[in-house]
Amino acid sequence: MKQLILLRHGQSQWNLENRFTGWTDVELSDKGRAEAAEAGTKIKNAGIVPRFFFTSYLKRAIHTLQIAADTMDLDWVPVIKDWHLNERHYGALQGLNKADTAAKFGDEQVKIWRRSFDVQPPALESDDERAPVNDNRYALLPSSALPLTESLKDAVARVEACWQEVIMPKLMLYDTVLIAAHGNSLRALAKILLKISNDDIVNLEIPTGSPWLFELDDRLNVLSERYL
Amino acid sequence: MKQLILLRHGQSQWNLENRFTGWTDVELSDKGRAEAAEAGTKIKNAGIVPRFFFTSYLKRAIHTLQIAADTMDLDWVPVIKDWHLNERHYGALQGLNKADTAAKFGDEQVKIWRRSFDVQPPALESDDERAPVNDNRYALLPSSALPLTESLKDAVARVEACWQEVIMPKLMLYDTVLIAAHGNSLRALAKILLKISNDDIVNLEIPTGSPWLFELDDRLNVLSERYL
Repeated sequence: MKQLILLRHGQSQWNLENRFTGWTDVELSDKGRAEAAEAGTKIKNAGIVPRFFFTSYLKRAIHTLQIAADTMDLDWVPVIKDWHLNERHYGALQGLNKADTAAKFGDEQVKIWRRSFDVQPPALESDDERAPVNDNRYALLPSSALPLTESLKDAVARVEACWQEVIMPKLMLYDTVLIAAHGNSLRALAKILLKISNDDIVNLEIPTGSPWLFELDDRLNVLSERYL
Repeated sequence: MKQLILLRHGQSQWNLENRFTGWTDVELSDKGRAEAAEAGTKIKNAGIVPRFFFTSYLKRAIHTLQIAADTMDLDWVPVIKDWHLNERHYGALQGLNKADTAAKFGDEQVKIWRRSFDVQPPALESDDERAPVNDNRYALLPSSALPLTESLKDAVARVEACWQEVIMPKLMLYDTVLIAAHGNSLRALAKILLKISNDDIVNLEIPTGSPWLFELDDRLNVLSERYL
């Protein structure tokens, strides 16, 4: 049997300030750090020992993983940081306060951007300093691979590539894998694992800092899932 | 030009207590954490941006790297944790206070164990709980690869394998690489890079928390080295 744990990062500074974050690299809040340690304790108390870690390129997920790993005394476990596990890119909304955005564009439009499967928020210009193509951490990637905005559908497509090409082989080899990532990249994984429809996935809420355990058979069919 | 930074972990709890540590997985002290942050600041202030990280399987080196990376805002940089970069294994001396060891075996013998190139301390029994073969983190490795004690010569041999097979290709590809590791695994790298003799290498002291910068040409010949 294989075990896969999905862990959404704890509260970040911008969650606290209610701003659209996306690929902006914001810090965990103190509450977020405490959530990460508590997640580690829950996994440890469940007797589960991950042998391989995945996380994104964003420090709120990376730090969540590091804190949880330290709590489990598993600092040494190999980790792959993959930008495909980043949060959905929120385009030109990134950095805006959610209330201000609603005032500017209307509640209905913001709801569509947040809750539709395939509608993208307004795109960043490619010369915007917030654009991934201008961020040194993505300098070794082709610009065509880097978004200026994303729908949830776009995010699912890149997470699916990562799942198939990178995560699945490690899960086959290492048996027990932990992925520390973001609301929408984990939604994408849940959609893939549980075959959730486009209409239903937009309403799935994954709580922060709560390890979500999937048990899978040896060919990675899901047998069961529960929060620890 | 290529840049390689060797960084010895900051002070650990057992450095503080003057005990033989080796592969024992002890925490950084508060001073050690401060040293790690200071090292990150020094690298950042030198305008150097590592694109790839290496560290060992031991948390005093892993945490040193994580703290330095966070200080540089480089949390996202890929990392390989490799047990070949662990501290020299101190065999049955691991856990003993250095003064008690000297009282038991004599100053002269302890000096030989600490300062000779090819003399191993007494080996652990293979059923000792301190033996790597009984540590879950090495469970996917063949027992013949795992030491019960090591001379500096033994440590150099395994670090050399890691240098040739793992580190060099990343340095060729990523240009700027940081290795956070231990007194003796970094001695081994310095011996390889600077062609230091067996007699001289035992006397090389690498300070904790001080980034040691090597500049190399495009085929990895050393051009210069200095502490930042």
